[in-house]
Amino acid sequence: MTFNEIPQETIRRLPMYLRKVYELLDKDQSQVSSEQLARELPVNSPQVRKDLSYFGDFGTRGVGYDVQNLAREIRSILHLDRTWPMALVGVGNIGSALLTYPGFEKKGFTIEMAFDQAPEIIGQTIGQITIEDVANLETRLRQEDIPIGIIAVPSPAAQNIADCLVEAGIEGIVNFAPTILQVPEEVHVNQVDITIEFCELVYYL
Amino acid sequence: MTFNEIPQETIRRLPMYLRKVYELLDKDQSQVSSEQLARELPVNSPQVRKDLSYFGDFGTRGVGYDVQNLAREIRSILHLDRTWPMALVGVGNIGSALLTYPGFEKKGFTIEMAFDQAPEIIGQTIGQITIEDVANLETRLRQEDIPIGIIAVPSPAAQNIADCLVEAGIEGIVNFAPTILQVPEEVHVNQVDITIEFCELVYYL
Repeated sequence: MTFNEIPQETIRRLPMYLRKVYELLDKDQSQVSSEQLARELPVNSPQVRKDLSYFGDFGTRGVGYDVQNLAREIRSILHLDRTWPMALVGVGNIGSALLTYPGFEKKGFTIEMAFDQAPEIIGQTIGQITIEDVANLETRLRQEDIPIGIIAVPSPAAQNIADCLVEAGIEGIVNFAPTILQVPEEVHVNQVDITIEFCELVYYL
Repeated sequence: MTFNEIPQETIRRLPMYLRKVYELLDKDQSQVSSEQLARELPVNSPQVRKDLSYFGDFGTRGVGYDVQNLAREIRSILHLDRTWPMALVGVGNIGSALLTYPGFEKKGFTIEMAFDQAPEIIGQTIGQITIEDVANLETRLRQEDIPIGIIAVPSPAAQNIADCLVEAGIEGIVNFAPTILQVPEEVHVNQVDITIEFCELVYYL
């Protein structure tokens, strides 16, 4: 079975499985059952088994799936077996947190450039990155081959920054501003809504 | 059909639908088809129709679902039709961002108290909250009825803070520290992994 034959909704479930798999790796757990994978995820265990069978991993009866192998397979399907350079726009609280976020490197993401408009922020170094003037955003992006832009500016500025990123040829945007962005169809946007984490929690309280 | 008969995996899909529904409300869209809801979500449209039929919303053929009604139903099932007071521990970059996050209020979440250990942060006011000394965390939480704790401290301190929150009777924790927390079974933890938003994006690039 080739990747092309994997249903879209299975592909879209893979990041959830990967999140779970990363938690298991952090706990040094080497095997996992479909029941344990399904626990706390929005799927049942037969669905997990069906999803994982699409990429040839049928697990071992009574033992389950090999966690390392699962991580490797899912990373490969999701194009996470390479490094993804990113450009960050907006170095306020969220931007600063992202610049020092320890989880990125392990997962192949790296912020290569960061931009802001405030004179007191431009020129500062956070982590290993020196903040540049957002006025040079398009020019600088054209010089390098950076596929992902992160928007962490206040809402009123977000669309303008998105337009710049699109002009400069960026392929995907992760948007932390609570604003729906208008972009051409070929540019993919992932809208971050941190309140969803809270919504998921309270059902159980 | 009562809520008790709704399958767990359907319940766990509701926050995803809600996220989509909030986006539609932001765009002032009043009707949505199951096909549009399924787009970019890890489910197909027959599954969406089945899920929504559990709470009696069968949509209107050729028109789809009423977005406002969908928002109301899902909020009710997820216990989001009330206000949830929260206590924040750790007022670094992430904590500061959460204190001024505009999305909380609209969704019924409110940070009532915030704590840190740094003398230069204690006593500062961010948003409408004056930061208190983390040494008083347990005492202060016992005085008020706050069900949710947010951990936004560095990893090495996270478990210690979780223990304090549990001691003080908190019911649920949203953990931004990249550390797996050990808590009693009756306390629910939602582990935030921001890299998942990036993992979801790159498949499409």
